[in-house]
Amino acid sequence: MKRLSVVGSAGSIGTQTLDVVRQFPGKFRVAGLASRDEVELLAKQASEFKPAAVALADEGAARKLRSILPRSIRVFGGPGAASRIATLTEADTVVMAVVGAVGIGPTLDAIRMGKGIALANKETLVAAGALVTAAARKAKASLMPIDSEHSALFQCLNGERRSDVRRLVLTCSGGPFRGKTLDDLRSVTVKQALGHPTWNMGAKITVDSATLMNKGLEVIEAMWLYDMPADRVDVVVHPQSIIHSMVEFVDGSIMAQLACHDMRLPIQYALSYPERLPNDRLRLSFEEFSKLTFEKPDKETFRCLQLAYDAAHAGGTSPAIMNAANETAVEAFLRKKAAFLDIPRTIEKVMRLCGTSPASDLETVLGADQEARVKAREVLGL
Amino acid sequence: MKRLSVVGSAGSIGTQTLDVVRQFPGKFRVAGLASRDEVELLAKQASEFKPAAVALADEGAARKLRSILPRSIRVFGGPGAASRIATLTEADTVVMAVVGAVGIGPTLDAIRMGKGIALANKETLVAAGALVTAAARKAKASLMPIDSEHSALFQCLNGERRSDVRRLVLTCSGGPFRGKTLDDLRSVTVKQALGHPTWNMGAKITVDSATLMNKGLEVIEAMWLYDMPADRVDVVVHPQSIIHSMVEFVDGSIMAQLACHDMRLPIQYALSYPERLPNDRLRLSFEEFSKLTFEKPDKETFRCLQLAYDAAHAGGTSPAIMNAANETAVEAFLRKKAAFLDIPRTIEKVMRLCGTSPASDLETVLGADQEARVKAREVLGL
Repeated sequence: MKRLSVVGSAGSIGTQTLDVVRQFPGKFRVAGLASRDEVELLAKQASEFKPAAVALADEGAARKLRSILPRSIRVFGGPGAASRIATLTEADTVVMAVVGAVGIGPTLDAIRMGKGIALANKETLVAAGALVTAAARKAKASLMPIDSEHSALFQCLNGERRSDVRRLVLTCSGGPFRGKTLDDLRSVTVKQALGHPTWNMGAKITVDSATLMNKGLEVIEAMWLYDMPADRVDVVVHPQSIIHSMVEFVDGSIMAQLACHDMRLPIQYALSYPERLPNDRLRLSFEEFSKLTFEKPDKETFRCLQLAYDAAHAGGTSPAIMNAANETAVEAFLRKKAAFLDIPRTIEKVMRLCGTSPASDLETVLGADQEARVKAREVLGL
Repeated sequence: MKRLSVVGSAGSIGTQTLDVVRQFPGKFRVAGLASRDEVELLAKQASEFKPAAVALADEGAARKLRSILPRSIRVFGGPGAASRIATLTEADTVVMAVVGAVGIGPTLDAIRMGKGIALANKETLVAAGALVTAAARKAKASLMPIDSEHSALFQCLNGERRSDVRRLVLTCSGGPFRGKTLDDLRSVTVKQALGHPTWNMGAKITVDSATLMNKGLEVIEAMWLYDMPADRVDVVVHPQSIIHSMVEFVDGSIMAQLACHDMRLPIQYALSYPERLPNDRLRLSFEEFSKLTFEKPDKETFRCLQLAYDAAHAGGTSPAIMNAANETAVEAFLRKKAAFLDIPRTIEKVMRLCGTSPASDLETVLGADQEARVKAREVLGL
């Protein structure tokens, strides 16, 4: 029986994690839940799963929740609340399901407490990969990916010797604008950007998928998870999203993982590994993948992917800066305060304005992140 | 340094095995070579690889070879000659590269001597799977598949728990007659049957690929290699032959192995496992698999595949009988003494005529094999 803290339980990955817990009541129980400000949903989740503690980052929301829940459930509030849930004594595994750089602190705290980490928060590894992986090694904490691509890579690497790997190949649906020109992209609306062809995800990630920044973040995430340089992590566009990623080995053999489009599969794998839990709901029918196609990504039109490679090559605080600029620009786009192409334009300018320095400690990384957000708002004229 | 005996060194797999040895002189050396009657080729191979011993099943051919080779190389002749090479003290690994039930005896002899087996001879497992796998367990001899499909399955199962496997999925090119009707198949010529769309193989296996019996043999081979019942070994037609096979796990995840069409890859993998040897010659280009398609096999038109499942379900000597009838009918077809559709017709009749009995020992299996060959010749009017 694994005891889980779910940080970001109100979001897309959080609610699907609770679906997995529901499906395997004998395997998992919920020890803690955390969200930013979703009082009602958290109250509902708490009454269903009866965790030891819950947390809301918003202090007012936490007070409200405290008045609703029975006294047996502790309620934390304020900026440190997520870390309280991530380091809960009652939990052995923490599902990091928040979106954005806000996940870095709680993840590091959980690792230092020796918790197993099931990581859906890609920005943590993008911005602070060196710190997080070093901390995990030191604490001997396991770091299991929840992203479908990284879960696929993990499965392809299973039982293999790392020295036999030639390269990782991340597959990419191409997003809703695959095949479009830069000119086409100028007028993209929020509604169009949120219409992802194959995956049902949160708004920020869906926009990242449309710009291909999502794949760029995943390239950097894969570098840290599997200790690979950027030039050995490739991306191939595979519109059907059936093959979730591949590993090419030095002998020419390629291992691939195929699955349906359902995040509950990588979630349950991350939580049950090394066991696989029987799940008839998540079967792939052969009709569904009667045809699989592959093409090269267009890094000129979808400049965000190239910028991610640039940041990966530059190293240090560059990925943190790139990520912060992206978060800021995507938020502005979602609030209709920036155009679609302002996203890569902003990132590129901010990366140039900020330069790069060694990512020696968390303060430096978070400082670079903050500076990049300020610069991004300036560039966007906000 | 692995010391290899190659039984069937003049054939397609045998010569490709020697290619692999040539490419990795620091990894492998040849201890023994055996063939049926290829004097000249064996003499050439012996002078290049300088084995301790060579063998020809044909006694006259062996005498001829003895007169050519230097005295330092022992030459065995006669029916037991292949087993002498398979059990050579100087070898630790035996590549079983002969085609047909003739491989069963030498394979069992090598296993009993504790040699590692790299098995390309599928008829050995089809006809005598129970005996061979039991002997390998007893002698703690490794049994590595050389078939590209079984090598793929092996790689997909790497690092996984056998209890997590839902089913094995063998891919099948569909052969040169994919999409044809029974009526189309009536007039198939030897030349047409030997024109395989993706693989370059020996004549017998190429005809088996055209009838889909090759896939049927592979289903039974997979059952023995990976301890699976027939109803958990499926076949899917995949005309591009890029995915060499897949394993579906209980959680819905599917692992697949992709590679170019070159038998040297599964050969080198079988010989180097658990290491993978760097090989730039065998890389798959993404252009090559820009499109992958899948469809159900047509077991009514390609009745041999259904007959193999029938034999697998019947168990005992049934697969040996089916295999012997197939070998006889394919030989007759290649000599233009039988029509293409006489192959399934003969197998079906012989299976009915022979019935089935427990495959309790090698004598019973070889007896069933002999009886089936006699019956097959009767059915074919030879």
